[in-house]
Amino acid sequence: MSAKSHRTSGSVAMDDYLEQILNLIEEKGYARPVDISKNLGISQASVTNMLQRLDAEGLVKHEKYRGTILTEKGRMIADAIITRHQTLTEFLRLFGLDEDTIYHDVEGMEHHVSKSTLRVIDVLLEELKDDSALLQKLREKL
Amino acid sequence: MSAKSHRTSGSVAMDDYLEQILNLIEEKGYARPVDISKNLGISQASVTNMLQRLDAEGLVKHEKYRGTILTEKGRMIADAIITRHQTLTEFLRLFGLDEDTIYHDVEGMEHHVSKSTLRVIDVLLEELKDDSALLQKLREKL
Ligand SMILES: [Mn+2]
Ligand SMILES: [Mn+2]
Repeated sequence: MSAKSHRTSGSVAMDDYLEQILNLIEEKGYARPVDISKNLGISQASVTNMLQRLDAEGLVKHEKYRGTILTEKGRMIADAIITRHQTLTEFLRLFGLDEDTIYHDVEGMEHHVSKSTLRVIDVLLEELKDDSALLQKLREKL
Repeated sequence: MSAKSHRTSGSVAMDDYLEQILNLIEEKGYARPVDISKNLGISQASVTNMLQRLDAEGLVKHEKYRGTILTEKGRMIADAIITRHQTLTEFLRLFGLDEDTIYHDVEGMEHHVSKSTLRVIDVLLEELKDDSALLQKLREKL
């Protein structure tokens, strides 16, 4: 298992499922295929197939009364993706980009940001939150 | 045609081909399937298929004595990807990340960075090149 194994599933599609499953569990307490299907804009048949694949990879389990849950490994990947999503979103919001652009860019970038690159973004984010004069100066150059 | 049509082909795989074709033309003067195959680590049969698809999309042409060339539209997309590649690489290098990590992250991110996000990175890059005290301060926090 590679050193990256806790950061991504190795598949952008699987990453997106894990992210949405964790979002749903945190919002609603459970992740139903119908809600995963709606959030990802993917047919229920495809969701069913992917849940089987995630199960085979040891990333989700199906429990009789709780529905789809994340395994420990699935949870770690989902957490890492959501952290990247939040950090990248907060960073781009500093610069006043419109929300659609931010969402679109972040959904793409979040699968490709290593721990080191995330740390760079995080350090910049903290600096710019503390130094409004610098942020203002940068925003005027956009 | 969407406002983004000059920025990406809509397919990560096609983007990567266009990027490599332009790299090869600029390095060697021509882009041969064997070199595309080597640079992308993809079989020559797959390269042949993709070149046909890029031709059908109006992104490359085959000319008898020059081999594969980019159409104007293909060239604009390739230029945009290479600009994103260079800006992202230069930005991450400021922070001393190792070259493998940078290459891997940039190859993923370059397909998902809008013009607005690229502008943010570019403004930060210029600022940090001009303010070595700030860069040093940030690097110490990594
Ligand atoms: Mn996301
Ligand atoms: Mn590239």
